Amino acid sequence: MRANDLAVPYPTVEMSTPAIEAARLLAGQNLPGLVVVDDRGRPSTVLPGTQVLRFAVPAYCQADPALARVIDEAAADVFIRSLGDRTVADCLPRERRELPVVDSDATMLEVAALMARTRSPLVAVAHADGTMLGAIPLDTLLDQALTS
Amino acid sequence: MRANDLAVPYPTVEMSTPAIEAARLLAGQNLPGLVVVDDRGRPSTVLPGTQVLRFAVPAYCQADPALARVIDEAAADVFIRSLGDRTVADCLPRERRELPVVDSDATMLEVAALMARTRSPLVAVAHADGTMLGAIPLDTLLDQALTS
Repeated sequence: MRANDLAVPYPTVEMSTPAIEAARLLAGQNLPGLVVVDDRGRPSTVLPGTQVLRFAVPAYCQADPALARVIDEAAADVFIRSLGDRTVADCLPRERRELPVVDSDATMLEVAALMARTRSPLVAVAHADGTMLGAIPLDTLLDQALTS
Repeated sequence: MRANDLAVPYPTVEMSTPAIEAARLLAGQNLPGLVVVDDRGRPSTVLPGTQVLRFAVPAYCQADPALARVIDEAAADVFIRSLGDRTVADCLPRERRELPVVDSDATMLEVAALMARTRSPLVAVAHADGTMLGAIPLDTLLDQALTS
């Protein structure tokens, strides 16, 4: 079993995609993260789902969650609006992360090793020219591993 | 909207649950993680999905994913068997992590702040006595936030 057998079609976003659109994709399809592609369709990074929240929640609430208590319920309900017109590029982690991308001929063990190392529940699979073939979410990998 | 309105019934595991059972729960129900409860039914921590892989993949393959290439495909396909009789307790991260658990009256902003801070796509909700009421996965929170 190789990565091209495990890969499933997967929605992508670009750096310029509005963050609120990314949130809709994550919510509507129950995805663990999103693959970010460059303008030539090559996977450039993975945006973890929780990262979108980091830009919707005021920094002081993240530093001390008790401070989130002082916001009343009506205002708390609409916190996602704080995303405003931020883009996916704005939401990416500042620190340089290892790219969770494998070649199409990577084995299941290589995919699992990369997920474990990067703690990413999503690995993109690229063709030899770097363009995206699909992606492998953790549950797809585990499903296959448990029946092998 | 409070945590008790957002919480959904959620499968739990115990420290003594076999890791392979945890993997089956994660795979079969497409869960972002599992809530680990103590012997009194109180959430004690959250096991992220990728953490299970850290104990199924040999350490040298995680340190250098290129080394995973030297394992042939037939052996790579059955990597999950390396979990052997390890338990959930064996798979938990060694470093002490902040507990992603909220009270039933936490607001959506409090839940979002905790997910952002801990980078956990899953937050457990506890009754006043500490026992588990349910859990809030990231997609449930985003679904609600986007329609508020």
